Amino acid sequence: MMDNFVFYSPTLFSFGDGEEKNTGKLVRRFGGTKVMLVYGGGSVKRNGAYDAVTASLLSEGISYTELSGVQANPRSGKVYEGIELARREGVDFLLAIGGGSVIDTAKAIAFGVPYQGDFWDFFCGKATFETTLPVGTVLTIAAAGSEGSDSCVITLEEGNLKWGCPKSDVIRPKFSVLDPRLTCSLPAYQTASGSVDMMAHICERYFTNTSDVELTDRLCQALLKTVIDAAPRAIADPGDYAARADLMWSGMLAHNNSCGVGRAQDWASHQIEHELSAFYDCAHGAGLAVVMPAWMEFVMEHDIMRFAKFAVEVFGCEMDFAHPERTAKAGIASLRAFFRSLGMPTTFAEIGAKEEDIPAMVAHRGEKPNGFPFGGFVKIGPSEMEAILRLSMKA
Amino acid sequence: MMDNFVFYSPTLFSFGDGEEKNTGKLVRRFGGTKVMLVYGGGSVKRNGAYDAVTASLLSEGISYTELSGVQANPRSGKVYEGIELARREGVDFLLAIGGGSVIDTAKAIAFGVPYQGDFWDFFCGKATFETTLPVGTVLTIAAAGSEGSDSCVITLEEGNLKWGCPKSDVIRPKFSVLDPRLTCSLPAYQTASGSVDMMAHICERYFTNTSDVELTDRLCQALLKTVIDAAPRAIADPGDYAARADLMWSGMLAHNNSCGVGRAQDWASHQIEHELSAFYDCAHGAGLAVVMPAWMEFVMEHDIMRFAKFAVEVFGCEMDFAHPERTAKAGIASLRAFFRSLGMPTTFAEIGAKEEDIPAMVAHRGEKPNGFPFGGFVKIGPSEMEAILRLSMKA
Repeated sequence: MMDNFVFYSPTLFSFGDGEEKNTGKLVRRFGGTKVMLVYGGGSVKRNGAYDAVTASLLSEGISYTELSGVQANPRSGKVYEGIELARREGVDFLLAIGGGSVIDTAKAIAFGVPYQGDFWDFFCGKATFETTLPVGTVLTIAAAGSEGSDSCVITLEEGNLKWGCPKSDVIRPKFSVLDPRLTCSLPAYQTASGSVDMMAHICERYFTNTSDVELTDRLCQALLKTVIDAAPRAIADPGDYAARADLMWSGMLAHNNSCGVGRAQDWASHQIEHELSAFYDCAHGAGLAVVMPAWMEFVMEHDIMRFAKFAVEVFGCEMDFAHPERTAKAGIASLRAFFRSLGMPTTFAEIGAKEEDIPAMVAHRGEKPNGFPFGGFVKIGPSEMEAILRLSMKA
Repeated sequence: MMDNFVFYSPTLFSFGDGEEKNTGKLVRRFGGTKVMLVYGGGSVKRNGAYDAVTASLLSEGISYTELSGVQANPRSGKVYEGIELARREGVDFLLAIGGGSVIDTAKAIAFGVPYQGDFWDFFCGKATFETTLPVGTVLTIAAAGSEGSDSCVITLEEGNLKWGCPKSDVIRPKFSVLDPRLTCSLPAYQTASGSVDMMAHICERYFTNTSDVELTDRLCQALLKTVIDAAPRAIADPGDYAARADLMWSGMLAHNNSCGVGRAQDWASHQIEHELSAFYDCAHGAGLAVVMPAWMEFVMEHDIMRFAKFAVEVFGCEMDFAHPERTAKAGIASLRAFFRSLGMPTTFAEIGAKEEDIPAMVAHRGEKPNGFPFGGFVKIGPSEMEAILRLSMKA
């Protein structure tokens, strides 16, 4: 039976070519008067996002300060720096220009500023969300879905802990500007990595033990098929607006939980990947491309028919009614082949991971409060995590 | 190319068995202190919704006044009555318990109360939405999607004008409680009629001239397949919670525009049906079951391949690659057969309509400001409207 749920996604999405020109109006609509821009390196200056956004703020008479240099797999140091800067400057609105790392950093600063203690308290359960500065985003990478999501992931430098904060509607952005044109300059590797990330966000919801979830199953399948169709087109022709638009809206829908309501979710692949990127600083999507098919092989026996459904409905595999496990396996093989076709790694070694680090990764996970077991579809303890990591070596 | 769009659906949805017990807390969360309950006849008292909601309000110390007697195809008289009552009692929150007619009435009262002039001014373009009293809903019929939508439809008694107000995010409900259990007592005819209504909401978006809308096409198909699967189960076994849950969430998604963003929409069938229900007071879904297949036959030639896609992807028809028009026709035939299988009328006579009234219906439509042409897929003028009505006589 479908679980009861609350779905509350009060983010305003302004989608399409040139929409970043409206950023200033949106900041004003949601009460911002003194903004902190948060961004990474120079790409937002090269692709025109920075110029369009700052011009739009100025034309509305909104002043701003800047926090730049956010890295992939964003780190706590930048969050502390941002909290201090925001307090000093009296910032009342956080505006992220970038992808998931930048948005997650802005979210963490936003709930860190009004909180008296250490912002990390929210990640380890010592504090719960009650208030936050408002956050807006101008998205430049279709991937993480943070532009519409109720969560963020930060790496605490002390201990190298890559953790997600508890989910809360309080931290959803007030608005997000999604202009597919801004993603046309992304390199193929980032486009591919982002596509894997959004597919993972859907798969983590798709593989469930909840029954009677046909509607959300179909929504998940619709999103997966769209990404499978659009990602190769965007890589073959980076300026393909239609493909970029499909990826951008899919990435948001993949993680605002519209396809995950009313069902138990899994998230084991994400948990395992967080150790990979904590150890090797690999792109999140690349780590997922390695872990997810291995996880699937490990857990497939738990529900052969769900994996067969995935194979048939997502990849168009022919159903082998006499041997559904063959269909299930064909689906996993199709997924791995698809990742390879995008130029993604699918083995441990390709992301620089080493077999001898496996016990340390498992132990590092174990240091997290309630670190084991994890996974809503199949419970993963230390030995299962190790087995999945070993499976991912030889795929 | 996909159109630019804004998607802003800030309604909180509380979904599942027993969720109406939280209504009082939700009213408080969204600032209500003095509520006006809006409902229809006795069904909300028989199915337990009224008792649960009022108990929940009282336990939060929230007082309420009542406006009952809202009819299907809701009329302006009840809106005027509600506006007067709300002002007299100092109501600051409208709480609708019922289906689309009740919710639409509550929405119209909510924007009518703070407005100095006639609430109908909003319908005929003399006023634009700036403010409204907050509205919450406890849904008891899965159909109209008003629980998540940005619009409402009221019939002005003087002139018998059944018009929709302009779409505006301002009038979306603050929260909607969706308990599928409350719909288990619905008669088969209302279940069927509601299912047709939600299918129409999707089809009005599906049939578009906008290109590059694969993602929203797939979302539309996912919703249509879900309704086609769930409606017969809910009719065969009214207490089938899974079927009721699928219908209830589909009805919301069908009309909060999540499957319609970035694409030109049609809405011709709705416009034509509004005349049918204005003339004969038929159930909206029943009128749509008559009009929609006739509209499809009339416009099919405009885009054979889109109708073939509808046939293949929604009804599983086999694609006739040599004769796509045969596939297109098979899809329309499947839709009509499906409506019949639900016990819906599919001809003009079955809803009590008369051939000799056709010119009067067309003329009545013409009295609406900008009444002709309408329809985003194919432009419908008076002669096309008449032709569609004539086609619907013999289906």
